[in-house]
Amino acid sequence: MTRIIFLGFGNVNSHLAEAFFASEEVTIVQIYNRSLKSLPVALKQIPFITNVSEIKEADVYIIGVPDDAIADFSKKIPFKDRLVIHVSGGVAMEVLSENNRKGVVWPLQSFSKNSSVAIKEVPMCVEAESASDTEILKTLFSEISEKVVEISSEERAKLHLAAVFVNNFTNYLYSVSEKITTQNKIDFNLLKPLLSETASKIKHLSPKEAQTGPAKRKDAKTIEKHLHLLANTPYQEVYRLLTEGIKKEH
Amino acid sequence: MTRIIFLGFGNVNSHLAEAFFASEEVTIVQIYNRSLKSLPVALKQIPFITNVSEIKEADVYIIGVPDDAIADFSKKIPFKDRLVIHVSGGVAMEVLSENNRKGVVWPLQSFSKNSSVAIKEVPMCVEAESASDTEILKTLFSEISEKVVEISSEERAKLHLAAVFVNNFTNYLYSVSEKITTQNKIDFNLLKPLLSETASKIKHLSPKEAQTGPAKRKDAKTIEKHLHLLANTPYQEVYRLLTEGIKKEH
Repeated sequence: MTRIIFLGFGNVNSHLAEAFFASEEVTIVQIYNRSLKSLPVALKQIPFITNVSEIKEADVYIIGVPDDAIADFSKKIPFKDRLVIHVSGGVAMEVLSENNRKGVVWPLQSFSKNSSVAIKEVPMCVEAESASDTEILKTLFSEISEKVVEISSEERAKLHLAAVFVNNFTNYLYSVSEKITTQNKIDFNLLKPLLSETASKIKHLSPKEAQTGPAKRKDAKTIEKHLHLLANTPYQEVYRLLTEGIKKEH
Repeated sequence: MTRIIFLGFGNVNSHLAEAFFASEEVTIVQIYNRSLKSLPVALKQIPFITNVSEIKEADVYIIGVPDDAIADFSKKIPFKDRLVIHVSGGVAMEVLSENNRKGVVWPLQSFSKNSSVAIKEVPMCVEAESASDTEILKTLFSEISEKVVEISSEERAKLHLAAVFVNNFTNYLYSVSEKITTQNKIDFNLLKPLLSETASKIKHLSPKEAQTGPAKRKDAKTIEKHLHLLANTPYQEVYRLLTEGIKKEH
């Protein structure tokens, strides 16, 4: 039985806690958060603390606080030589305090408060200082995911950058698209089947194979028309730059 | 029984033909294409022609040739006062020849050769010069789709522009993401659950609500790190511009 403690209870840790709670191989000893949080019903029986001095013994401590607070927070854990990990894609393992054994497990998914995610399919990107701690983390996270992979801090930084493109930037393009439609009193829902299909295609086609549209066809007339429709909006420059990018690669 | 003829047999018309073939209310009289095409097995019994002079009588002629060939092609149809439509998102209805009654039905989806699409869910954007032709087209396309909507040429131009953002540009971001991973010997597949979830979220969240990441958090440290990783690549400017866009809206 592995004993774990969650330190910080934001989106990532709360999704992890719900998943680990269902595992018979894992005990959640405590959940710490700086301020009181209402726990999901399933987790109400787990002791909840708001004072770091009350943190108990455990095998793995899972820090899920904001990125720029991870380093400082890791120094406050009142133990030595325990396995302490954070769950952030954008922060190197090195920032963790030297007091304890360092590790990272980054669940490569975007968790939202009211959106349930099939956690079994979420890649868990594991890193630790020692081979034995790597094994501990791989075994632990295999309890909740079928895709546990070893990823170094350096690789994780690049994977995090790539994730910004498929998630944050893609979502921004959705928002531009929504603006264009609603400002013209057109129902954005009309675009949703296309939006879904665009993502679905990548399951069996490479993005290069899946590319279509005026930029790929080098259809100057349509591109001109679109740039004209976007005149005096901040989206014209986005259109121009992405069109140039596609043209160069096809 | 409505008699239809397909003029041009690219991705859109071939998907439409397969769907209409299954309807008992519609007869496909002929399929024309400039050059010989191998028809899908299901359609092999439909007469296939490569000469416009052989085009027969029908109720609706559906032009599916490249955008810049639509206007000229529509002049070659050897009939008058028939309902002739094209299926393009990027071309106004007006370009069709005055010889016949004009219409457009744009299936708002990206069709690929070897990818089947749930056509019932594809929005069919219908336009015609007369109310009676609009009704004919709405009735006809209701045979294959549950989402038939009236959309003017002007609205369609904006919808087409918005579609470029959720489809072509989004796909380009996927390709950038793939480049970043594979150039660093990281498996792009690790990002696929995130990519899917990003699209899925838009079913129940607006893009603005769904936005996350360093730009939204105005996390200057992570943004700097990412720009540094992209130094001397064409993607640095894309990162900068999209980051600025997100920052402005949050």
